[in-house]
Amino acid sequence: MVFELKKDKFDCFIAFSESYNNSNMYHLSSFLSTDPFVFFKSPEKTCIVVPGMEVERAREDSDLEVISLSNFEQSQNRYLGAIKKLLNDAGCSKIGVPDEFPIKIAHKLGGYQLFPINLSKQRAVKEKWEIQHIENVQKTAESGMKTAVSILEKSEVIEGELFYKDRPLTSDYIRYRINVELLRNDCISMDTIVSSGKETSSPHNSGTGILKPTPIIIDIFPKNRKNRYCGDITRSFSKIKNNKINKVYQDVLNAQETAFNKIKEKNQITGAEVHNAVCNYFEKKGYNTPRTGGKTGFIHSTGHGVGLDLHEKPSLGRAGTTLKKGHVVTIEPGIYNPEFGGIRIEDLITITEDSFKNLTTFEKNLYI
Amino acid sequence: MVFELKKDKFDCFIAFSESYNNSNMYHLSSFLSTDPFVFFKSPEKTCIVVPGMEVERAREDSDLEVISLSNFEQSQNRYLGAIKKLLNDAGCSKIGVPDEFPIKIAHKLGGYQLFPINLSKQRAVKEKWEIQHIENVQKTAESGMKTAVSILEKSEVIEGELFYKDRPLTSDYIRYRINVELLRNDCISMDTIVSSGKETSSPHNSGTGILKPTPIIIDIFPKNRKNRYCGDITRSFSKIKNNKINKVYQDVLNAQETAFNKIKEKNQITGAEVHNAVCNYFEKKGYNTPRTGGKTGFIHSTGHGVGLDLHEKPSLGRAGTTLKKGHVVTIEPGIYNPEFGGIRIEDLITITEDSFKNLTTFEKNLYI
Repeated sequence: MVFELKKDKFDCFIAFSESYNNSNMYHLSSFLSTDPFVFFKSPEKTCIVVPGMEVERAREDSDLEVISLSNFEQSQNRYLGAIKKLLNDAGCSKIGVPDEFPIKIAHKLGGYQLFPINLSKQRAVKEKWEIQHIENVQKTAESGMKTAVSILEKSEVIEGELFYKDRPLTSDYIRYRINVELLRNDCISMDTIVSSGKETSSPHNSGTGILKPTPIIIDIFPKNRKNRYCGDITRSFSKIKNNKINKVYQDVLNAQETAFNKIKEKNQITGAEVHNAVCNYFEKKGYNTPRTGGKTGFIHSTGHGVGLDLHEKPSLGRAGTTLKKGHVVTIEPGIYNPEFGGIRIEDLITITEDSFKNLTTFEKNLYI
Repeated sequence: MVFELKKDKFDCFIAFSESYNNSNMYHLSSFLSTDPFVFFKSPEKTCIVVPGMEVERAREDSDLEVISLSNFEQSQNRYLGAIKKLLNDAGCSKIGVPDEFPIKIAHKLGGYQLFPINLSKQRAVKEKWEIQHIENVQKTAESGMKTAVSILEKSEVIEGELFYKDRPLTSDYIRYRINVELLRNDCISMDTIVSSGKETSSPHNSGTGILKPTPIIIDIFPKNRKNRYCGDITRSFSKIKNNKINKVYQDVLNAQETAFNKIKEKNQITGAEVHNAVCNYFEKKGYNTPRTGGKTGFIHSTGHGVGLDLHEKPSLGRAGTTLKKGHVVTIEPGIYNPEFGGIRIEDLITITEDSFKNLTTFEKNLYI
């Protein structure tokens, strides 16, 4: 990331974190580390400070200047010593830090004025190569979905439960098969949702036990092991004809189409406007939405940004800001009701100059 | 976790984070969420505040009182509103927060005194059930190692590279096979190191390309998908006889034995004492250590705690504090040199009343 100092606000910038989970840190440094390290930027210098044993690997991975922690004086907290030395050498007093900068370190930098900086807006707008990475991960996610579908297609319903190759078909088995497919493409699965029956009414329930024939939600969100970008796709299925489920499915499909049309028809649209269009549609169909309140119906936002984090900016919810070229977002309306379960359909799209491109090509068929 | 307020220091405690990556949050709440939520504890009340759509799932997973975010007034930042309401209702002024509490939220709670609390000491001492979880993950890690060994055993060396079933044997292939074995046991592999030749001289290099015959480092660190505990094991191998590598291997093995003996022989030993014993041994053998400095030799600490995080307290490094019953730590000496690569041997142990129990049973043989 080309990260620029806002010199009117702060004269240098410090981040301190590991970079496996903290995507800001990875975005700033391009160095992947399970242990925390320092990112420092002043008008004269941009560098990372890493343990001696990591110097070589950091120099291979990052374009930034890499300084060994062993170059700094040994003290009780060596990183704090390094941060203070860097700040002192640069003569900085007003320091930008990421929003998530840990309060403990902040307290120990008591003499300095710290300004929390929100990096999420900057990260939300993706470069072409980032969109390419995400599109590739999405292809892998679709490949996982294909694996799941081929198992579901071959399964049969016996006394209200799914069987595959004469054995009970479990959520864990399909998840395993999906996740192996992701691994084959060097993607990590942080989790994979394979839920069925009433458990589908809780959108983030991962699913457990033998699959019920309807509805079945499969939500796949892999992360590439190397470049760390994510994908995200959801499809809903039914192994048996069911008018109620089919009605909900068509409504959710239309709600997604409503969101797509809204983005196509208008430049400079906000995530909130897209979300409201989806809420309008659902409310007209008689469902609750986040605007009307209630525990059933459409109970989440229309979508979220996807990048190094699975959930990042921009939001397509009630506070969603303007969608910009280079944003990558999910469009994932869903309807949930403990009485029959849930249906969710999720595509990943990228906003273009005056419309969008769907990064998802997987078919949408309820019956399987 | 039974988390107690230290009433002399603060009269309530707030945490705000997602809990997939933030293990403190998971430890406090037992609720796994990719989106941030609030943990609150006052003398009268312990609760979490989650989005409406997560209430049901949270009530299933967590023993704490679960409050829906929709119970709080709609405002620009609803979580901040919820936090302020909880604090106000409880009449708190001095607030404990985890060390990693985000500075942005801290600034927005400007009227309150915040005290960063280190939860790592509390988390470092494991309950019996936690050690059981870790031991089970470690068994899965060993199962992955067995998969790798069986492939390496069947591979052959042709012109300085490994072949398996008449095809070049790559780091990616073995990693894939290991990770599939982890998946079979419902464990996520955040990464897996399968490095060979000179790349082994960088301890965290994941490895790439066709495997060289010596040395080969395999480091497996899975996380259980459901209970979130980690395991950690490393073995080093050689497909060809090599006196230099063998000498280093024996020295590393003896260094590990030195650490084990040190823990056995003395009650109330510190991580630093164990680390120093290993450094003493290596220095006597003519290697550099973190104490002598230098870019080759023993270039990291002797070990680290393992739990919900792969790297957590206590440390077995220069600042390592007293090892306590219930601690779970790695013992992983290693020797690295760009000239021939690296050798590392890592077991996971738990500290007992007056000794330790090795949670790792996998054999240690260089030649394969």
